[in-house]
Amino acid sequence: MTTTSAPSDQTRSLLLREHEVAVEPAPVPEPGPHQVLIEVAAVGICGSDVHYYEHGRIADFVVEAPLVLGHEASGTIRALGAEVTDRTVGQRVAMEPQETCGRCTQCLAGRYNLCPQVQFFATPPVHGAFAQYVVLDSSRAHPVPDEISDEAAALIEPLSVAVWAARKARIEPGDRVLVTGAGPVGLLCADVARARGASWVGVSDTNDTRLEVARQRGANQVANVASAPLDQQVEPVDVILECSGATPAVQAAFGVAAPAARIVLIGMGAPDMQLPVATIQIKELEVTGVFRYANCYPAAIGLAASGLVDLDGLVTGKFGLEQVEAALTASRTDPHSLKPVVYPGTARF
Amino acid sequence: MTTTSAPSDQTRSLLLREHEVAVEPAPVPEPGPHQVLIEVAAVGICGSDVHYYEHGRIADFVVEAPLVLGHEASGTIRALGAEVTDRTVGQRVAMEPQETCGRCTQCLAGRYNLCPQVQFFATPPVHGAFAQYVVLDSSRAHPVPDEISDEAAALIEPLSVAVWAARKARIEPGDRVLVTGAGPVGLLCADVARARGASWVGVSDTNDTRLEVARQRGANQVANVASAPLDQQVEPVDVILECSGATPAVQAAFGVAAPAARIVLIGMGAPDMQLPVATIQIKELEVTGVFRYANCYPAAIGLAASGLVDLDGLVTGKFGLEQVEAALTASRTDPHSLKPVVYPGTARF
Amino acid sequence: MTTTSAPSDQTRSLLLREHEVAVEPAPVPEPGPHQVLIEVAAVGICGSDVHYYEHGRIADFVVEAPLVLGHEASGTIRALGAEVTDRTVGQRVAMEPQETCGRCTQCLAGRYNLCPQVQFFATPPVHGAFAQYVVLDSSRAHPVPDEISDEAAALIEPLSVAVWAARKARIEPGDRVLVTGAGPVGLLCADVARARGASWVGVSDTNDTRLEVARQRGANQVANVASAPLDQQVEPVDVILECSGATPAVQAAFGVAAPAARIVLIGMGAPDMQLPVATIQIKELEVTGVFRYANCYPAAIGLAASGLVDLDGLVTGKFGLEQVEAALTASRTDPHSLKPVVYPGTARF
Amino acid sequence: MTTTSAPSDQTRSLLLREHEVAVEPAPVPEPGPHQVLIEVAAVGICGSDVHYYEHGRIADFVVEAPLVLGHEASGTIRALGAEVTDRTVGQRVAMEPQETCGRCTQCLAGRYNLCPQVQFFATPPVHGAFAQYVVLDSSRAHPVPDEISDEAAALIEPLSVAVWAARKARIEPGDRVLVTGAGPVGLLCADVARARGASWVGVSDTNDTRLEVARQRGANQVANVASAPLDQQVEPVDVILECSGATPAVQAAFGVAAPAARIVLIGMGAPDMQLPVATIQIKELEVTGVFRYANCYPAAIGLAASGLVDLDGLVTGKFGLEQVEAALTASRTDPHSLKPVVYPGTARF
Repeated sequence: MTTTSAPSDQTRSLLLREHEVAVEPAPVPEPGPHQVLIEVAAVGICGSDVHYYEHGRIADFVVEAPLVLGHEASGTIRALGAEVTDRTVGQRVAMEPQETCGRCTQCLAGRYNLCPQVQFFATPPVHGAFAQYVVLDSSRAHPVPDEISDEAAALIEPLSVAVWAARKARIEPGDRVLVTGAGPVGLLCADVARARGASWVGVSDTNDTRLEVARQRGANQVANVASAPLDQQVEPVDVILECSGATPAVQAAFGVAAPAARIVLIGMGAPDMQLPVATIQIKELEVTGVFRYANCYPAAIGLAASGLVDLDGLVTGKFGLEQVEAALTASRTDPHSLKPVVYPGTARF
Repeated sequence: MTTTSAPSDQTRSLLLREHEVAVEPAPVPEPGPHQVLIEVAAVGICGSDVHYYEHGRIADFVVEAPLVLGHEASGTIRALGAEVTDRTVGQRVAMEPQETCGRCTQCLAGRYNLCPQVQFFATPPVHGAFAQYVVLDSSRAHPVPDEISDEAAALIEPLSVAVWAARKARIEPGDRVLVTGAGPVGLLCADVARARGASWVGVSDTNDTRLEVARQRGANQVANVASAPLDQQVEPVDVILECSGATPAVQAAFGVAAPAARIVLIGMGAPDMQLPVATIQIKELEVTGVFRYANCYPAAIGLAASGLVDLDGLVTGKFGLEQVEAALTASRTDPHSLKPVVYPGTARF
Repeated sequence: MTTTSAPSDQTRSLLLREHEVAVEPAPVPEPGPHQVLIEVAAVGICGSDVHYYEHGRIADFVVEAPLVLGHEASGTIRALGAEVTDRTVGQRVAMEPQETCGRCTQCLAGRYNLCPQVQFFATPPVHGAFAQYVVLDSSRAHPVPDEISDEAAALIEPLSVAVWAARKARIEPGDRVLVTGAGPVGLLCADVARARGASWVGVSDTNDTRLEVARQRGANQVANVASAPLDQQVEPVDVILECSGATPAVQAAFGVAAPAARIVLIGMGAPDMQLPVATIQIKELEVTGVFRYANCYPAAIGLAASGLVDLDGLVTGKFGLEQVEAALTASRTDPHSLKPVVYPGTARF
Repeated sequence: MTTTSAPSDQTRSLLLREHEVAVEPAPVPEPGPHQVLIEVAAVGICGSDVHYYEHGRIADFVVEAPLVLGHEASGTIRALGAEVTDRTVGQRVAMEPQETCGRCTQCLAGRYNLCPQVQFFATPPVHGAFAQYVVLDSSRAHPVPDEISDEAAALIEPLSVAVWAARKARIEPGDRVLVTGAGPVGLLCADVARARGASWVGVSDTNDTRLEVARQRGANQVANVASAPLDQQVEPVDVILECSGATPAVQAAFGVAAPAARIVLIGMGAPDMQLPVATIQIKELEVTGVFRYANCYPAAIGLAASGLVDLDGLVTGKFGLEQVEAALTASRTDPHSLKPVVYPGTARF
C-alpha cells in the first residue's frame, strides 16, 4: 500500500442496525492489491437507503447484520494498493459502487452490472459509503475534473442510471422522449435525453412541485397525470423512460408510445403488472429495464463537466454523519426534497 | 398492361359472407402501373383465415362486406403494369401480401409493416388470394427459383414471420433459443433459429403430436408443459420466441430467460397479461413483438432454396377452391393438421 | 392541383449553360399527384454548385443541358398535387432535395439515399432550386416551425449531412470526437457531435480563420495541421468525422483513432488513397462513408428549432437571383465565406 | 492447487531459438489462483507459427528469448488453482489462448481482445502450447462435449476468428457472402457464413486445390482470380470476408460490394494499401478489421458440436513434438496442407 498522508487507524462509519442508525468507530480499511483507499467527501441519499432504513430490506436483500448505507459517493484517493498504477494519491474521484468478478459470461461480454457475483455498496451484506474511508477497485474510482464539485461527483451515480437508460433507449436527435416520474433519476433522465439531442422532452408526475423543477430544467412540456390521463395530454413519443415505478404510469406509457417506440423501465415498483401485450405486438414496441449500469461513469462525468447536465442544482440539503437520520427523514417527508447530501468528514460539520 | 397469354375476362374467387364461403365469378383484375397480374398457384391456410371464417372478425377488423380470404400465396406472373420493368411474364413468385404507401415515416425508415395505410391481403376490406387471379405491386412479387415448389412458395409468408422474429431477437451462433408453441409458425421459428446458428433449440407445447414434429425437424429438446412447469424442464435460454399466444406460456418465458435475454411475442392472445416487470428489470430482458414483417421475403426464399428450412414438410392437406370450407375445418379440428394448402386453379382439382 | 393563390404561369430560373449562368423565364411547374408546388425562399450555395459552375461536371455527372443549380432550399407551399393530404398551402418547408423510387431494395430497407433511381436536385439532368418555383414530393417538403428562419430552413440540408454522419458514427455521450475540415459541413458535424453529448469535440483544419469560427461555436480544441502533425496535437479519439476530403487528413485520422474508433468519410476528395490497413485491423477501426442522407430532416429540424445547432450564424452573404455568379465566386475566393444564400424571389432584392 | 493425478515435476516443451526449434525439459507450471493446469492434447499449426519460425518476428513482435510456439490448443484439466470453482479436474477443454487485465476500458466494455495488457500465447514473450502442460485462466479453458475431438477442440481457435469476423459483418439470413482466400480461416469463414443463414457463399483464391476444398465444403461458387478479375466472375455481394491479406484481393473486394455492404479485413498483409475511398462513400460501405476475437469460444464450440462446422476435415497431418519442424515445413511447402496438428504428449507418437 502506497500512501502519502496515511490516515490514522481509526475512523467513523454510520451503521444501520435494524431501524436505527448510529455513528460508530471502525478501523480504516486496507486496500487490496488493485484497490484504492478513498476518503469520502460527499454521499447522496437514494430512495433505496431510505427504504432499507424504514423496512430493513428490499425484495430479497435483508439487512441481517449492521450495514453501512450510502452508494452515491465521491472522495479523494488517500492510498493505493500494491498493483495500482493508473491512479495517484490525491486524485478526486467519483466512486462507481460495484466490484465484479471480471471472468463470468456477463463481465466478459461488457455487461458487468449483471455479474452474479457483483458486490454493490450498501446492498447487504456489502457496506456502503456513509463512512470516512472506503476501499474500491481502482478501475471504479473515476477521476473527476475540477469543474465537478464533491456533491456533483457523488451524483454521478444516479446520473449513470440515466445514461444507461438513455443508452438502452437508443435516444437519437429528433426523438420525442417522455419521462414518467420527476424524482432525481427522472429529472436526470430528462437531462440526458436532451443531451443526446432529443427534439422534445416531456415529464409527467402527480406532484406539481417536482414538475415545476422539471420545467425549470428545460422540459418542453410537463403533465400532471393526477388531473387528466397521460394520453390526453401528450402526443405520441418515440421513447418512454419510466422512472416512477407506479403501475398506472407503466401502463399509461404504452398508450402514448409511437410505433416502434422504446420503453425503458427504471423505477422499481410492483413485481408484476398487467401490461398490454397486444399493443407491444401491434406497434412493435421494445420494452426493457435497467439494473444499475455498466460503463457509464466516464460518459456521466463528461456530461456533468461540460455543463450539459446540472447536478449541483439537485442538492436540497447538506448533512454531517451524525445528521443522517434527519437526512433520511427529509428525503421521505419533505415534498421539496430532491437530493440530500451527507458529508462523512468531520471538517465540514 | 403487357401480357403474353391474356386471361379471359372472367375468373373465380372464394368469398366469405359472414360465416359462409362460396366460389363466385369475378372479373380478372387489372394491374395498376406498378403492379403485376398473378395467376395464383397455391395458398396456405392460416389461423387468421380460420378465425375470420368462424368469428367474422379479428379484434377491430370486421368482415362487413364479402371478403376473399387467403394471404399465404404463390403464383405466376401473367401480365405487367405499364411501369413495371423489373419483372417478366411467366416468372414464378412468392407473394408478399401487403402494399404500403412508401412515403410515411414508417415506410421511409424501412419499417413498412407499420405503415398506417398498409393494405394487407384478407384483412377487411382488402381481398386476399383465394382466387384465380390477383394483382400486386411488382416489388412484392418475389421471384422464386425452381428448387421451391408452389406450396413452399406460398409458405414463404409464414416463414417471413419467423425470419422477422429471429431478426428482432438478434439470434447469433451460440445462442440457446426456446420456441413456445409448436404450430406452423413455431416450427418455422425453430428452423430459422437453427439456420442462424443457434447452438440449442428447444420447443415447448401442450400437444405431443406437434412436439414430435418439432423433434423430427431437429429440435434439441421438446418439453410438454402440460406435464411440468417450463422452468423445471428447460435450462435458461438467451432467446424466447413465443408463438402460442397463451398467457401461461408468455408468463413462463420470463422464468427461463437468462440475463439480457430477448423475448419476442409472436403469437396473438389476450390483449393484456400480468407480466413480471421486476424480472424484466433485474435481468435486463428485452421484450418486443412482431406485426407481420418487412424486408424478409428475399431472406426467407434464400433459406428455403438452400434447404436450410423445409417448407414442403409442413403441408398436411391439398384442396381445390370448392373445398376451402373443408380445409378451414381441417385446420381447426384435425390434431395432425399443420398447413392445408388450397389450389385455386381449376386444372389441378 | 389545389391552390389558393395560384402563381402566374411564368416564373424565373437561373440556368447554368456550360460555365455561364443566366436568369431565364420558365413555366411554373405543375405538381404531380403526390407533389407540392413550393415558392422558393432561400437557397444556400454548396461546394458542389461551385464545382459544377467551374468545371461543368462532378465525377461522372456532366452538365450536358442547361441546368438549374442549388439544392439547399427552403420555401412556402403554394399548391398541392391531387393526392396530397398531409401538407397545406402556406406551410413553410425545408426541402429534402431528393425523390426516390420507393420500391427498390434500398428504399424498402430505409436507405433511400442509395436508391439507384434517385433524382437529386442540381445533379444533371435534374434541376435544382435556383428558381422561383419548384415541385417536390410532399413527403420531402418538411414543415418547419417559426423559430427557424428561411436561411436556416435552407441549411437544414447540410445539417442533415452532419446528422447522418454522426448517426453512422454512433456518437454517444462521453465520446471524444474529432472533426477534420472546418468548412460548413465540418462545423455542423462538430455541432451535432456536441448535440449528441460528446464530451470533447476537436476540429482541425489548415485555415486559422475557419478554426476560429469552430472555436467560437464551441469546439473544445482546434488544431491547425499546417503547423504540426495531427497526432502531436490531439489525444486519441473515439470518432473521426472527416470533412475535408484531403488525403493527408484522411490518412492522419487513423493515427489518432482509439481502439474500436469509428471513422466516417464525408468530404469528397481523391477517389483512391493509401490507407493503413493494418491499423484498421489491429485497432478494429470501423470506416465508412456517407452519400447524402436518409431520414434526417426531422432530426435536423429538431436540432435547429431547439437551438442546439445555430444555422443562421453560418450565413456570410445574401444574394438575389441575378447575383448568383457573384455568390458562386465569393464562395470560392473569400476566405471568410462560409455559406452564401440566394433569394430567388424578386421581392427581397 | 487441487489435483487428482499430479503430474511429475518435469515435462517437455518445444522452444524456438532464433530459427531452430528443440524439445527441452521444463518444469510443470504451477497454476495461479484463478488458473487451471492443462495437459495439452492437440495443437494446430497456424501461419503465424510458421512466420515466427522462419522470420523470428511478426511486425513489432520479435522473438528475443527462446519461445514456445503454438496457440490453437486443446487439452484436459489436470489441476485447479486455489480460487477455481467453475471447472473440474478431468474436463476436456478448448483453450482460448489469451489472458487480459479485466479492468481497462476495453475489457470492461467487452472488447477484451483489445486490452493493451493482453497476454497471447506464442506472441513474444508469452509462451504458447507446444508443451505437455500449460496454465490458463479458468475462464479461458472452455469445456467441450464428447462430440468434439481433440483436434477439433484445438481448431476452435481459428473457428473463433471466423465467428468474430462474421459477427462484425453482421451476416444475416439472405445475405450474399464472398470469402476471399481459401486457407483454413477462409474456409471456416465460409462455413460460419452458411451457419448464419447466408443464402449464397462464394470463395475466391488463386489456388484451385484450395478452391476445390471450398466447393466440397459447400461453397455455392468458387472463383479462381488468377484467370479473370473478381468482378467478372461474381455478382455483387452484401458481405466480403477478406482472408488472404493480398493487396489485389482487398482492392477487388470493393468492386463486388453491393450498396451498404460490409467488408471485414481478416488476413494480414501489407500495412498500407491503395483503397477506393470514393467507393466507400458512394456505396456507404462499412470496412473494419479483426484482431483475434472476444467472447467467441462458446459460439464456436456450439457450431462444431452441432455439426454445422466440420473441423476434423481440415486436419491434413499429425505430428509428435519431435516432428514439429516437419509440420512447420509441411504447412509452408505442401500445397494440399491445410492444418497440421501436433500432439505434445509422448503417448501418441
